[in-house]
Formats: sequence, C-alpha cells, structure tokens
Amino acid sequence: MVAAAILPELATQLVVPVAAAVGIAFAVLQWVLVSKVKVAPEPRGEGGSAAGGGAGAGAKDGASEYLIEEEEGLNDHNVVLKCAEIQTAISEGATSFLFTEYKYAGGFMTVFAVLIFVFLGSIEGFSTKSQPCHYSVGKTCKPALANAAFSTIAFVLGAVTSLVSGFLGMKIATYANARTTLEARKGVGKAFTVAFRSGAVMGFLLAASGLFVLYVAINLFGLYYGDDWEGLFEAITGYGLGGSSMALFGRVGGGIYTKAADVGADLVGKVERNIPEDDPRNPAVIADNVGDNVGDIAGMGSDLFGSYAESSCAALVVASISSFGINREFTPMMYPLLISSVGIIACLITTLFATDFFEVKEVDQIEPALKKQLIISTAVMTVGIALVSWLGLPYTFTIFNFGAQKTVHSWQLFLCVAVGLWAGLVIGFITEYYTSNAYSPVQDVADSCRTGAATNVIFGLALGYKSVIIPIFAIAFSIFLSFSLAAMYGVAVAALGMLSTIATGLAIDAYGPISDNAGGIAEMAGMSHRIRERTDALDAAGNTTAAIGKGFAIGSAALVSLALFGAFVSRAGITTVDVLTPNVFIGLLVGAMLPYWFSAMTMKSVGSAALKMVEEVRRQFNTIPGLMEGTAKPDYATCVKISTDASIKEMIPPGALVMLTPLIVGTFFGVETLSGVLAGALVSGVQIAISASNTGGAWDNAKKYIEAGASEHAKSLGPKGSDCHKAAVIGDTIGDPLKDTSGPSLNILIKLMAVESLVFAPFFATYGGILFKYL
Amino acid sequence: MVAAAILPELATQLVVPVAAAVGIAFAVLQWVLVSKVKVAPEPRGEGGSAAGGGAGAGAKDGASEYLIEEEEGLNDHNVVLKCAEIQTAISEGATSFLFTEYKYAGGFMTVFAVLIFVFLGSIEGFSTKSQPCHYSVGKTCKPALANAAFSTIAFVLGAVTSLVSGFLGMKIATYANARTTLEARKGVGKAFTVAFRSGAVMGFLLAASGLFVLYVAINLFGLYYGDDWEGLFEAITGYGLGGSSMALFGRVGGGIYTKAADVGADLVGKVERNIPEDDPRNPAVIADNVGDNVGDIAGMGSDLFGSYAESSCAALVVASISSFGINREFTPMMYPLLISSVGIIACLITTLFATDFFEVKEVDQIEPALKKQLIISTAVMTVGIALVSWLGLPYTFTIFNFGAQKTVHSWQLFLCVAVGLWAGLVIGFITEYYTSNAYSPVQDVADSCRTGAATNVIFGLALGYKSVIIPIFAIAFSIFLSFSLAAMYGVAVAALGMLSTIATGLAIDAYGPISDNAGGIAEMAGMSHRIRERTDALDAAGNTTAAIGKGFAIGSAALVSLALFGAFVSRAGITTVDVLTPNVFIGLLVGAMLPYWFSAMTMKSVGSAALKMVEEVRRQFNTIPGLMEGTAKPDYATCVKISTDASIKEMIPPGALVMLTPLIVGTFFGVETLSGVLAGALVSGVQIAISASNTGGAWDNAKKYIEAGASEHAKSLGPKGSDCHKAAVIGDTIGDPLKDTSGPSLNILIKLMAVESLVFAPFFATYGGILFKYL
Repeated sequence: MVAAAILPELATQLVVPVAAAVGIAFAVLQWVLVSKVKVAPEPRGEGGSAAGGGAGAGAKDGASEYLIEEEEGLNDHNVVLKCAEIQTAISEGATSFLFTEYKYAGGFMTVFAVLIFVFLGSIEGFSTKSQPCHYSVGKTCKPALANAAFSTIAFVLGAVTSLVSGFLGMKIATYANARTTLEARKGVGKAFTVAFRSGAVMGFLLAASGLFVLYVAINLFGLYYGDDWEGLFEAITGYGLGGSSMALFGRVGGGIYTKAADVGADLVGKVERNIPEDDPRNPAVIADNVGDNVGDIAGMGSDLFGSYAESSCAALVVASISSFGINREFTPMMYPLLISSVGIIACLITTLFATDFFEVKEVDQIEPALKKQLIISTAVMTVGIALVSWLGLPYTFTIFNFGAQKTVHSWQLFLCVAVGLWAGLVIGFITEYYTSNAYSPVQDVADSCRTGAATNVIFGLALGYKSVIIPIFAIAFSIFLSFSLAAMYGVAVAALGMLSTIATGLAIDAYGPISDNAGGIAEMAGMSHRIRERTDALDAAGNTTAAIGKGFAIGSAALVSLALFGAFVSRAGITTVDVLTPNVFIGLLVGAMLPYWFSAMTMKSVGSAALKMVEEVRRQFNTIPGLMEGTAKPDYATCVKISTDASIKEMIPPGALVMLTPLIVGTFFGVETLSGVLAGALVSGVQIAISASNTGGAWDNAKKYIEAGASEHAKSLGPKGSDCHKAAVIGDTIGDPLKDTSGPSLNILIKLMAVESLVFAPFFATYGGILFKYL
Repeated sequence: MVAAAILPELATQLVVPVAAAVGIAFAVLQWVLVSKVKVAPEPRGEGGSAAGGGAGAGAKDGASEYLIEEEEGLNDHNVVLKCAEIQTAISEGATSFLFTEYKYAGGFMTVFAVLIFVFLGSIEGFSTKSQPCHYSVGKTCKPALANAAFSTIAFVLGAVTSLVSGFLGMKIATYANARTTLEARKGVGKAFTVAFRSGAVMGFLLAASGLFVLYVAINLFGLYYGDDWEGLFEAITGYGLGGSSMALFGRVGGGIYTKAADVGADLVGKVERNIPEDDPRNPAVIADNVGDNVGDIAGMGSDLFGSYAESSCAALVVASISSFGINREFTPMMYPLLISSVGIIACLITTLFATDFFEVKEVDQIEPALKKQLIISTAVMTVGIALVSWLGLPYTFTIFNFGAQKTVHSWQLFLCVAVGLWAGLVIGFITEYYTSNAYSPVQDVADSCRTGAATNVIFGLALGYKSVIIPIFAIAFSIFLSFSLAAMYGVAVAALGMLSTIATGLAIDAYGPISDNAGGIAEMAGMSHRIRERTDALDAAGNTTAAIGKGFAIGSAALVSLALFGAFVSRAGITTVDVLTPNVFIGLLVGAMLPYWFSAMTMKSVGSAALKMVEEVRRQFNTIPGLMEGTAKPDYATCVKISTDASIKEMIPPGALVMLTPLIVGTFFGVETLSGVLAGALVSGVQIAISASNTGGAWDNAKKYIEAGASEHAKSLGPKGSDCHKAAVIGDTIGDPLKDTSGPSLNILIKLMAVESLVFAPFFATYGGILFKYL
C-alpha cells in the first residue's frame, strides 16, 4: 500500500541546496544592483545649485537616464556629503547596538548551551551506551548524551544563523537608506526600486541561509546518527530553539530600543523644544533612526526566522516518528525543506514583478505594487506546493497522532500547506483593512478625536479588539483542517505554508524602515519639499505593509506554537491533555495570564528606557551651547548607547519570564501542567498580540490621516496642531509601545516557551513534576 | 463505611428557611431604621438661617441628639425640600428605567422560556413516559418533558427573583440617598450609618430571598419528582440560568446606561459648558445619578445573585449524581444551601460591628470600617463553614468525577469552601492595592501624568495587566485544591464559599452609589462646603470598596463558570476534554477570542449611547432659554429616556453574542467544541475583566489623588486644571467604560454561556454537532 515518493533521494539532496544557493545568489545580485547607487557627489553639474564645488571622481555612465526625471539639487555636493555622513552615523549606531547585543547574546547562548547539555545529558545519567528506540520498535538508538551534545550544537547553529542574518540585514538596510534618499531626487520609482531591492536582499538571505544551514546540519548530524532518525531530529530541534532565542533579543530588546529612542526623541524634541521630527539638532535622532532598523529589520527578521526554523523542526520531529521516519524515506522526510526550497523560487519570480516586469512610476502605484507581491507570491506558491506534494510524497503514508498512527494522503498534505498559506494572506488583508486609513475603521477612530483623546483611545482599543475576530477564525479554520487531516504534522506544515513566502514577506517588511530612514535622511540633509514628499509616500506604503507583516508574523507564530506544542506533547509521551484535570486547567488559566504579565513588563520597560533618553536629550539641550541654533553638533553616540544599554537591561525581566517558566513548570509541576500553560499562553497571547498591533497601527494611521488631509472629512479634523490632531497624537504615542514592543514580543513568548518545552521534553518526561511526586 | 450526617433531615428542613427568614427580617429592620430619617422640613429652628418659614408638622424626639453635632442649615426648609425634590426625580428616573428594562426582559424571558421547553422537551420527542435513570442504576426517572417543564419554571423563578431583588434594592438606594445627605448635616458618622444600613437592606434581601426561593422550589418540585433527584436537580439548574439572564440586562444594559449618562453629562457639562459635576443645570445630571444606582446596585446585585444561584445549582447538579443524590441523603444534598444559611447569620453578626458595636466618628474611620467588614465576615464564616461541614456531611462520601466516583471526607470539603472564601479576601485586598491611591501603583500612574496623557494611559494599562498576576494565582490555587480534593463539586462549593459573605459584600458595594448620590444631592441642593466634604469622604471610601467588590465579583465568576463548566461536562456525558483534538483546540482558540469581540461591542455601545446623550444635552442648552442662568429647569426626563432606550438597544448585539454562541456551537459543532469554547472564554475573559476593572479604577483614583493634593507629591502634580490633572482626566474618561461596562460585563459572558450550556446539555448530548455528523 505504501508507495515511495516520485522524487528520488539524490534529487532531493540536490534540489534543497541548489534552491538555497539560488536564493543567496539572488540576494547578492540585488545587493550589487543597490550598490550601483553611489553615495558620493556626482562630478557633472546637470542642475547643481549649491555653492560647494564638485571635486568629484570617475565617469558615470547612464547620465542620460538621470535626465528623465530631473530634479533640483540632484548633484548638490553638500547634500550628498550630508547624506553620506548621516548614513555613516546610523550605520555605526546600528553596529554598536548589534555588537553590544551580541556580547550579551553570546553570554546567554553559552549559559543556555551548557544548560541544554546538562539537562538532556542527565536523562540517562550521562551514559554513553546506546538504547532501544522509543518509536522504531526493535531498533537501537543513540544515547541521550549524544542527543544532548547534538541538540547543543544545533542550538548554537540556529542562534548564529539568526545573528548573522540579522547582522547582514541591518548592514544592507543602513547601506540602502541614504541610497534611497538620493534616488528619490530622480523620482519615486527609482527610490522604490532601491528600497525594495534592499529589502529583498534581507528576505532572500535569511530564507536561503536558514534553509541551507538546516540542510547541512541534518546531513552532518546524519553521519553520526546513521539510521537513528528519532535521535537525529530530536537533536535538530535545538536549531529552532537557537533561532528563537535570538528572536528574544531581536524582538523584545529591539522593541524596547526602538520605542525608547522614538518616544524619548519625540517627548523632548517635538513636545518640549518644538522642533520637527528627524531634526538633526535632536540628539536622539540617530538613535531613533537606528531603532527603526533594530525593531523592524533585526526584530522582525529574527522573529520570522525563528518561526521558520521552529515550524521546520516541529514538522521534522513529528515526521521522524511517523512512517517517513520509521521507514527511513528521505524525500518525504525532507518535505518541509522542499516546501521552503520551492518557496524561495516562487518568491524570486514574485520579486521580478515588482522590480522588472512592472515599474512603479507614480506615488499611488507603490502600495498596490507591494500588495500585489503578496497575492502573486501566494498564487505562485500554491502551484509550487502542489508540485512538491505530488513529487515529494508517497500517495499514502502514516502520521504520528499522539500515540496512534493516522493514515494520510499526499493531497491532504497539500491542503494543509495551502490552507496555511492562504490564511496568511487573509490575515494580511484583514490587518490592512483595520489599520489603513483608506478604510472606515481607522477613519472612525480619526473621527472620534473630535471629542478628545479619551474617545480616540476608547475607539482605538475597541477597533483592536474587533480586529481579532476574523484572523482568529482564519487561524482556527487552518488549524481545524490541518489538524483533522494530518494531526500535528498538518499544523506544522500549515505554519510552513504561511511562512513559505517568507522571502517576499521580509522584503516588503524591510522596505518599510528603509523608506522611513530615507525620509529621515532627506529631512536631516535639508532636502527639498518635493523629495520629502516622495520619501513620505514610500514611507506611508511601508507603514501599511509593516502592519500586514506584523499580522502575518502573529498568525504564523500561533500556528508554529501549536505545532511545537504538538511536537512537545508527542516527545513527552503524553496522549491526552485533559482540561478536566486540575493540573491542566490551572496551567491553562496561569498560561492565559502570562501574556498580561509579559506585556506589563515590556510596556513599563519602554517607559523607563524612554525616561532615561528624555533626561539625556534634555541634558544635551541644556549644556551644549549653540545646539538649538544649529551651530554645535549634538552627541548622537551617547543617545545610541543609552538606548542600547536600556534595551539590554530592560529585556532581562521579560526574557527571564519566558525562559524560566517552562523550566520551572516542567520541572516542578510536570508535563501536563506545562501543556496547559503552553495552550493557555497560546490562545490568550495571540489575541492580545493582534489587538495591540492593530490598535497601535490604527492610531498611527488615524494621525497620518488627519495630517495628510486628503479628503473633506480629513480636512475637517485637521490641520496639524488642531485639537483633533493633538488627540490623535496622544493615541499614536500610546500605540507606539503596543504595536512595536509589547504586541510583537508576544510572538516570542508563545513560540519560545513552546520550543523550549520541546527541547527539554525528554528531561521533563523523565524527571518532571517533582512537586507532585513528593506531595 | 458511609455514615450519615449528624444533622437530621428535619433540622435541615428548618434551618434553611429560618435563616432566610432571619435575613429578610434583618433587612426589614434596617429599612425601618433608615426610614426614621425624615425627608421633610423640621419645625424647630435650632440654627435655621434661611428665609423660608418652617411650616413643619409633628414633634420629633431625640432633638437633643441632634445638638451633639450641630451644623449650619440643619433645618433649612428650602434645602430639605430641594433634597426631597431631587430624590423624587432620581427615584422616578430609576423606576422608569426599571420598567422599560422589565418590558424587554419580560419579552426575552418569554421567548427563552419557550426555547428551553421546546429544546429540552424534544429530547425524547415530547414523550410522557418515564425512562431508566442515567446515573442511579436500576431506577426509573421522570420523562424529559417533565424536566423541560420544570426547567422552564425554575428559569422563570430565577429571573423573577433577580428582578424583584433588583427592584427593591434600587428603591431602597434611591430612598436612602437624600437621607444620607440630610444626615451628613449632623455628622459623618450618622451619614455613614444610613448609607451602610441601606446597603445592608439590599445585601440581606438578595441573599435571603435567593436562598428562600431556591429552597421552596426544591421542595415543591420534589413533590412531583419524589425519588428522582437526577431529574429534580437538572430542572433546578434553570434557576441559575434565569438569575444569570437577568444579570445580562443588569450588568450589560446597566453598564451602558450608567456610562452613557456619565460620559454624556461630563462631555457637555464639564468640558463644553464649564459647569461643575452634579450641577442641577445639566440636563443629564439626574440620568447620571440614576446611572450610579442602575450600574452598581441593580447591575452588581444581579451579577452576584446570578453567581450565587449558579454556583448553588452547579453544586446541586453534581451532588445529585454523587453518593448524596444516589443514596437520597437530604442533609448533605442541601450542603450548599446550609452554607448560604450560615453565611446570612455570619454576615448579620458582621453588620452589627459596623453599625452597633463600633461607631464611625471621623472621616478616616470610614474606609477601615468597611474593610473590617470583609475581614470579620471572612473570619466568622470560616467557623460557620467548619460547623456546617461537621454537622451537615457524613465523614466519608463519594463525588462524581467525570465518569468515576471519587471518595471525599467532610474536612476536605471544608477546605474547598474555606479556600474559596479566603481567596476572595486575597483578591479583594490585591484589587485595593492596585486601585487605591494610598499605595504606590496608583501614585506611579498619577506621576506618569507629568509627561502627558499618553504615558498615563501606557502606565495605566501596564498596571491593569500587572494586577492580574496575584488574583490569577489565588484563583488557580483555589481551583487546584478544590478540584483535586472534590472534583467539580469542590470547585462549586469553593465558589459558594467566596459568595457565602454575599450579604456583606453587597452591603459594602451598594453603600458606594448611595454615598455618591448623596454627594450629588448635596451639590444640587446647594448645601455648604462642609457637608459636601463629608459626602465626598463617604464617596471616596465607596470608590475603593466598589473596586474590591468588582474584583470579588470577577473572582467568583471565574470559579462559578468552572463549576458550571464541570456540571455541563458531567451532564453532557463527556469524560475528557482533550486539547489534543482539533474540535477542542479550535473551541479554545475561538472561546479565548469571544471576550475581545464582546468588549469591542460593549465599548462601542457606550460610545454611541454617550454621543446621543451629548446631542440631547447640547440641544437643551441651546434651545431652553435661561437654562445656563439657572432660571429655567432642564428636561431631565428626556435624558433619562435616552439613556434607558440606548442601553436596551445597545445591549442587543453583545447579548445576542452571549446567548447564541452556546446554542450555535452546541447544535452545530457539538459538546467537545463547546467545552473548548467555554474553557477558552473563561481563561481569557477573567484576565481582561480584572485588568480592565483595575486599570479603570486606578485612573479614577489617580485623578482623585491629584485633585485631593493630600501629599507633597500629589500637590506637585496638581492643582485641578493643571496639565497633569488634564492628563489624568483623560485617563479617567477612558477608564469609565472599561471599569463599569466592558470589564464587569465579561463576568456575564463567561457565566451565562456556561450555565446556558448546562441547561441545554441534555439537548446537545442528544442532537448536538450536526455539522460533524453530516460531514
């Protein structure tokens, strides 16, 4: 009955690394294209208006092209120099943050690696003897000590991959921001292409390197493990934990960094000193610009990379104890990696639609171009999934289902992956509906500013609550279908489906902060109003896609957590998690409380860190003579340092809550209670995450709606500085920590607790629940 | 092995009605004492300063007593007349609201009664034949049609008891408010006693009549059911559903009413017209005062009555299929009613401590006196529980535990009830810590107003999230202990333990709006600053106890819902609710979403209703000549009507969500999915309810802290009208719907869905899940 997959093992061994290589090559190509924009003054004076002479160097071809959309100040020597200078400051600030973060992340990794090794090694008393397998009856598996060692290695690999990808992403972003500004002089289309290409570098690099490292690790570990796939894929789960731990630094630490700098800069600059946003006199302005990259590039990147690594690991660990693993069928076993491989190709095709097949020429083409990316990638990927499911799977196979084996057909698995993919699209568009000011929900919130800040906040909170409904139904439907068809493996591949277009998702997402920074640089460099308008248009589209990206990240986090939860339960040997037992129920109740505890911490962290920034900015304004007049330069570096130090320090309590809860609950209260905690945190956390993100996004765009004054209704609320606008600004400030810190950080809470439980499952199953054992 | 209870059946048949009668008699006595204060001018002019002559009537003894705390304007004819007039207006407004509400509640009750009868009657095709029992093997039980009929009767009884108690409570409160104002002329102690006694009338009336009607119903139904206790107590669950359905009107409708009037009055009066709160020129001022009674008296009363009725029913229905029911042991079967009986006596003793054993003489004795009530009642009740558990239970018995019978000892049941009782106290005091401005959390929130409304909101939200932690651990501990010791019966009696001091809890709670109204009347009647200060002191203490009461209501709602959930599961014949099945998991996820959906609705309802009020108040100010000058009277009745109509209309969508969800999920998706929905809504809803209530309470008291300026720190933030104060007012306005509408309404969501599921359990078990059956 059980037929083999059409694709032979050798082909699989080729397809995966080749797809990864193509992805990396494509990223490099995009980078080369971006680097063609020179951040150095042009020698030929087609329209230079400034006094500073152009002592330029080297001939530049394509000058005729530049004439198409000629603009004032195109070759203004001073402006270009200024851009280069600001870019350097942002880049240095970003690097300084990353190196400080890596120092602490390194320490954390070392400690946690030891912990993993000791906990997992202790299961058989550090014995080096092989043992009978759990699931493959009659076979011999490697000792727990080996699993401990390889889990530790996988953990380090996952962490390092996440760090390197994040580092490169930040480098590219800070490399691209000034280039986007300079291209904006030539037209909005040029600027869009630079920003989008740079985002694509980040997206493809992360997706491809994540896949490649995982592939290499499986093959290298396989040399030792041989036929013991149970142990092999148990060890591989460390990769997910490593990736996700770094996301703790990226999302939580990064979230605190970005909002501390933002709120701190605004409270003194805009409110107290009455200077515009992104004014170079504000000492915190560079920290604020660095923060955009830290939060939305490094943070979002590490978050999605974590999700990707975790869903792959969850799928692999369940597959290893299903018929794929038990019968040692390599190609179906690699199904999750094949999906990701096809995903890279599908995204590559999609990217060409934005940069090559069509061209953005007008401001109002930007947002549709970005949204088309989502639709195209989803459509192309649906075909890709069908192909992989047809070629990479036997028609019939069995999947481990909490103690039993469930028969599944390949087309059912196709449905699982596809439902995840399309649910992601639905969530993305619903998020857009609730956070874009093109639709009535945000316009209603803006309208409520008429009666003041209080009604704005009430309507904004209500909007966030309401925006949860459809995404939850979409997630519930995906879970129901994939869970019913293929148990937890179905859920894991549904999550992978949602994440299969990660390269495009990240490209769109990284595009946001690059455009935002480009606008800031234009402002700081004193560029003209017309250029600023173009960068603003780029930025506005980026805000919407950032909200979509967040919705997407939360949706996938929910699916991933459930898949990890399922894998944990399978690995811990539990067959039911019965709500009608006191252990599970109190776990559920306390688990549902954790997101509130965690959010309370992260929100207060932003407050405290912002306060420190406020003090430093005030100090500089008061003690540096000529700062307000623009004759003296502020000390940007100190502000960057304050944000950096505060973000690291303030992330310790919430980080400890996430990392210690599974260890404490598992060790003292046992796996049933821990199951309850994971399920409770998942079902409660996803709601707060969605509502917090959307409430914040809606307030931001309600403010922008009033500022832009594009319709009669909007004009009646404005202009900038009116009472309505002031009320809207209050909402926007409240929304900052909600949408950029506490909301997205909850993804990490629910995923990290689940993957940590999975990695430590063998330990908890052996020694867990000591409190109940001795009571 | 199974010994009988010490207390014989006859004694039990006496104790319960006697305790209920004592409670009612005590309530009447308190009412008589309150009614001694005359709302009519005094004839003898001891210090009358007004011009109006005192054409008084009748001699008054105790005139010498009045001289002890002599005060200006004591017998001012005009002032007394004015108070009487305002009281009449408030009382009429309240009655008008209640009658409108009853009209709709009556319609709802009729429809739902028919629904219950048809759904439950259809189980055996409306057959009138007896059938073999489910749990009492070998015995014959009454037909489903009889259960349907008696369930319907019990439903109506529960609803009517709730309505009558609410009506009397409102009558007493509006009867007492002007009397409190008048007594405040003589001193704060006198005023306190009147307000507290009036609260006690409400508390004892509700506790005693709830017990009495339940007792009578059991005995009357018993005449038909005879030995069939399974059917008898299944039918009795209708009582809980009836009580809880009316709480939907009280809490949700009442919550919308009170905040629509409050926010509407403030937005035009305070903000636009710059007139003080409770100014008689404001057309919405009477509606606002009526609202205090509607929300905190009728709303809280019906909520707690619902909890009381539901926890009793949940305990009874589980007991009926445990050894008590199977062996037909009447006294242990009545254990829940015995607990409530002793509770009435314990609360009676406690009340004497506030009104007779000690006397409040100074302003700063008020809050301690109220808090002592909670501690004394808890301590006395602990002894009472021990007594009842010793006398009313056999030493050993068995409790139904999802398909099996679990052996339990009487002292274990004592622990279950006691842990609930003490957990209530812990929750009360933690709530106080987070919402009273005597402690650092609220002071920190007040301090955050320095940097504006945005930081105030961020810190307030964080405080609310943080305040969830300890109450959840307290609830989790109670659940763990009671669940482990005596399964769902343990949880039900733990809830009853928390509610056993309901008479005292309600007395304290009802004291709040009475004092609040007294202050409003003093302001409107133009009384002196000194009297206003006294009523303010009474009101301030009432604010804190109101927050405690809310914490208490939420805590008990959580326990009650779990008990109902357990009873539902038992009645539906489910033995496990496994999170590792797709049905249950998606139920959990969607259930956890419902509180967000519901809150979005209730928050928007307040906004829309307040907007209508704003329009009417503006209209009156613009069209009634001489209104601002005080020469013309506003049209109070129209504002009352607007609040009334809006509250009824706006509660339909959230009410429909609550009432339809169990019916739709149970009928189409079956009992497993419904179990998931109930568990998810419970674990998620309790967190939002606590955090919303406490956030709102903290903002309210942070504002009051700045206004009072009692410390150096508070003075540095004030005075009234400063930027800090303005930021605090914004927080307070946002908090209004959170703490008085959407937060407390969630109690109803989680309880009502659970009790409705319980009542319809036999139907769902027979016909439920049609979607899965045909797919």
